[in-house]
Amino acid sequence: MKFLQVDTIEKAREKIFNAAKNWLQKAEMLPLEQTAGKILAQDIIAPQDLPHFRRSTVDGYAVISKDCAGANESIPSFLTVIGAVEMGKGTEFSITTGQCAEIPTGGMLPSGADAVVMIEYCEAFGDNEIAVYKSVAHGGHVVQIGDDMKQGETLLSKGKKITPQDIGALAVAGVKDVCVYIPLKICFISTGDELITPHYNPLEDGKIRETNTLSLAALAQKHGYDVVKTLTLPDDEEMISHAITDNMQDCDIVAVTGGSSQGKKDMTAEIINKIANPGVFTHGIAIKPGKPTILGSDTSSQTLLVGLPGHPISAMTVFGLLFGWLHKEIAGERQEFAIPAKISVNVPQSPGKVTCYPCKLVFENGEYTAEPIFYKSGLIATLVEADGYFLIEKDTEGLAKGSNVMVYLY
Amino acid sequence: MKFLQVDTIEKAREKIFNAAKNWLQKAEMLPLEQTAGKILAQDIIAPQDLPHFRRSTVDGYAVISKDCAGANESIPSFLTVIGAVEMGKGTEFSITTGQCAEIPTGGMLPSGADAVVMIEYCEAFGDNEIAVYKSVAHGGHVVQIGDDMKQGETLLSKGKKITPQDIGALAVAGVKDVCVYIPLKICFISTGDELITPHYNPLEDGKIRETNTLSLAALAQKHGYDVVKTLTLPDDEEMISHAITDNMQDCDIVAVTGGSSQGKKDMTAEIINKIANPGVFTHGIAIKPGKPTILGSDTSSQTLLVGLPGHPISAMTVFGLLFGWLHKEIAGERQEFAIPAKISVNVPQSPGKVTCYPCKLVFENGEYTAEPIFYKSGLIATLVEADGYFLIEKDTEGLAKGSNVMVYLY
Repeated sequence: MKFLQVDTIEKAREKIFNAAKNWLQKAEMLPLEQTAGKILAQDIIAPQDLPHFRRSTVDGYAVISKDCAGANESIPSFLTVIGAVEMGKGTEFSITTGQCAEIPTGGMLPSGADAVVMIEYCEAFGDNEIAVYKSVAHGGHVVQIGDDMKQGETLLSKGKKITPQDIGALAVAGVKDVCVYIPLKICFISTGDELITPHYNPLEDGKIRETNTLSLAALAQKHGYDVVKTLTLPDDEEMISHAITDNMQDCDIVAVTGGSSQGKKDMTAEIINKIANPGVFTHGIAIKPGKPTILGSDTSSQTLLVGLPGHPISAMTVFGLLFGWLHKEIAGERQEFAIPAKISVNVPQSPGKVTCYPCKLVFENGEYTAEPIFYKSGLIATLVEADGYFLIEKDTEGLAKGSNVMVYLY
Repeated sequence: MKFLQVDTIEKAREKIFNAAKNWLQKAEMLPLEQTAGKILAQDIIAPQDLPHFRRSTVDGYAVISKDCAGANESIPSFLTVIGAVEMGKGTEFSITTGQCAEIPTGGMLPSGADAVVMIEYCEAFGDNEIAVYKSVAHGGHVVQIGDDMKQGETLLSKGKKITPQDIGALAVAGVKDVCVYIPLKICFISTGDELITPHYNPLEDGKIRETNTLSLAALAQKHGYDVVKTLTLPDDEEMISHAITDNMQDCDIVAVTGGSSQGKKDMTAEIINKIANPGVFTHGIAIKPGKPTILGSDTSSQTLLVGLPGHPISAMTVFGLLFGWLHKEIAGERQEFAIPAKISVNVPQSPGKVTCYPCKLVFENGEYTAEPIFYKSGLIATLVEADGYFLIEKDTEGLAKGSNVMVYLY
């Protein structure tokens, strides 16, 4: 007989990470423009110094800064204009002492010049002479070669979620295709004799609409998963067993949500132990809601097998805490930022368990207040008001009004 | 001649909102499972009381609570088991005093019963008698009719971004199709003789890779826009003019990014005034970076016309502050939460302008520190380190190290 192991969140995370870390690192090359929001599976190294020429950051005149030393409204410097830099072209000519050249923002500095005087501080005299009324420092208004990136430096590291500005930096570096992680594939199987399809009307006595596959699929997609399949089955051991086995081949994770009755819980664990090897490694998690959670794995098909509680809020809580975390951790991605807040009321704690409180966030007088949302088991509509959730550690005795918590956004 | 109007961010927001508020409210019906992350364009009203029957939240026995009053380990209550509730079915029988029925989690309470005793506190005696070792309150372990939602109450309001838990609540309510806003359509036109396609190698003198269309498209998608088209053109008035006119028909917003040279800025404004009516209404915004921004509109084609600065960081800053904001505001969606943080160094302020500082967020000792990222005009790679940005209001004189700021995540 297997030992029924109730784990902490940390322990459960460690176990799913260790079970899956060697399987779940598949990557693919995608064209740059399709990679926003994806996770880098390679370091990106700057291929050359960029910009690769000295550029002006203003409209004005390329000069030798020494020539304008001390120039002011009363005593301007006078310079000869020997040409004009054309946008997008190299410059053939050179600047020597006493000379300058017209230059647009983004134009290439002619050799000899070391700074640009803004056009606002220049005045034309005749066809090719200007007066400069302000001095400029060496390098003033110039982007130097390599200022944006230097050849060989790591521009972006493996595990980074690609942002719009990263896309810009990758484009500057001339990167065409990017190696990114393939989203983990997941399947949700909802089980229960009481379940009917969501749109079915009218409702018969004892029946409820199946909602877990829809809400969990949306949550999984939000966390970066590829939801391959969702299906709803009655409490039939053979049907559930076949459905899990079928989907183990195509998916990295197969998650079964059952009613949370004693009989059903056992069924999921028993099925996993029958069809998977090594099978169940966690039987219960020290969290409220979400205790009746089963975790297991199958080595040959490289699949994590999960039994989630049937109650919608419990299922979503556990899924987010374990598998939202896992998707980031596997890729080395940064976990989400949380928002510091003070709680609006006293909240109780369940002995021996971490408690997860959904909450509303209210911003007032420069700080956030977290208003916990209390709910009954098995319901979900109260959660539509929640902006996020906070956790109370298991070694505390509840928290008093005004205590600091960290709110993770939904 | 038009008056060149430099606006504050607030004024510019007000103007684009007023110009566009009556055009940009198109909605469509989508199947529920495709609506996660979309914005509700209708209020959702609960169609009936749900759950529509009384459900048990535990495995145990449905009882009349009075029958178990005072029951404890020493003096149990004895009850006759008259049946078992089947999952997903209505119950035909009724409970009267001294009776009970077996019930699974989620099962329908038989009439007469008003509470459920958990199986852990019951012991079987013979075939149809149990001892109950704990009292239970009226309604204990029971979800009442309408506990999740009550007929006629507003479950979700127009303008809400649909979360995974909202999907669950909508499924409970039996909603099949949902009316959501159609994302605004946008086109980006990048202009400049110096621009070459991003993947082009090797780079010639004076040329730079075009990056704005890629990074702005990614940013726009993140803010919920539908990016219909991106194109890159040389500084040719006629070509740019045609491209804008063409895309005004299909798009809600046409944004042109130009070099920030004096000549080019004027060109975008002149083109907009030629082809659009009423044309340009904002010529410059009091923000750093991002001042050279042009805003206009065309009433007949119902299009906002925008000239964004050519510098990548400036263009992204202005786009996020104005058009990220607009997409939410038009739909009545909640704006993003920001993270309170203390700045790690003194930061200067530009007189008369709001200053936008990209920053890194570091969490230590229960609070966030914002480390500003300083950068040169025209570059972008430094921004890959940024987690978000904070703004310094224009009536301040910079901020001292340790000051509180609100960081908006990228």
